[in-house]
Amino acid sequence: MSEKDFAAFWPVFQEIVTSAQTYTIDPAIGFDDAYRLWCQAPLATWVAKDASGTLLGSYYLKANAAGPGDHVCNCGYMVAPAARGQGVARKMCEHSQTQAKASGFLAMQFNAVVATNTVAVALWQRLGFRIVGTVPEAFRHPQQGLVDTHVMHKALMR
Amino acid sequence: MSEKDFAAFWPVFQEIVTSAQTYTIDPAIGFDDAYRLWCQAPLATWVAKDASGTLLGSYYLKANAAGPGDHVCNCGYMVAPAARGQGVARKMCEHSQTQAKASGFLAMQFNAVVATNTVAVALWQRLGFRIVGTVPEAFRHPQQGLVDTHVMHKALMR
Repeated sequence: MSEKDFAAFWPVFQEIVTSAQTYTIDPAIGFDDAYRLWCQAPLATWVAKDASGTLLGSYYLKANAAGPGDHVCNCGYMVAPAARGQGVARKMCEHSQTQAKASGFLAMQFNAVVATNTVAVALWQRLGFRIVGTVPEAFRHPQQGLVDTHVMHKALMR
Repeated sequence: MSEKDFAAFWPVFQEIVTSAQTYTIDPAIGFDDAYRLWCQAPLATWVAKDASGTLLGSYYLKANAAGPGDHVCNCGYMVAPAARGQGVARKMCEHSQTQAKASGFLAMQFNAVVATNTVAVALWQRLGFRIVGTVPEAFRHPQQGLVDTHVMHKALMR
């Protein structure tokens, strides 16, 4: 994802973090910090576009931890509101697993999948991820109050 | 913890990360990055000393996540090798819970307690923490190979 792509993606990013339903990102985050978080801190960031070049979504890939934990990766996915329900998240997750394996990661871990985000939980499960832990009330949902988050994990077969 | 304290603590920090038994920190981390990680990125970092001023250990306190997850805190504790078995970790953990409550945190979460670190797991359990998840093979132990990590959690009663 180039900086120009990120500028096009920024309204999507903002919509997702200000709705505060799914990501533990400060809803008031500015462009520069968001660019750093999404594009510079990770190992790689990808953009999904349709045939006409319209942005559909984006994901990042990074090590989930350093040193003796850096064989496990972590990804975050965001789909543009207009592109939902078309399998974009699934395609990005499949792509990210291929990329992760190519980078030598042995597993992929999501640290805080919000339990009320049932569409995401079900999709990750269909893609082979397992809930390996549930943290009680770790997410302040704007409508539903304190809700649980799941730790989800998948070993990446080589 | 002052920068001068951190300089005194640095050999302890180095011993712990180079042994690579307990922390997902790059064993080759340098002083400046370690200082940033342990003292500057967190909300607060404390040092434990005995009556004569000898350093016994240190811990940091920070939010475990941003935005809708910033009501849960995270701590990391390190005890000087010469001070082990004297209840320093217990005292630091109790102190950190008091500090966390004073800062308004509702819970404390440890993201990756290495399962082979049975002394720590048992201590956190005695102090009221619960294993809420186990990530398979998330830690490369230098002697034992790929070992599990636990997510541990405690609600902080007010």
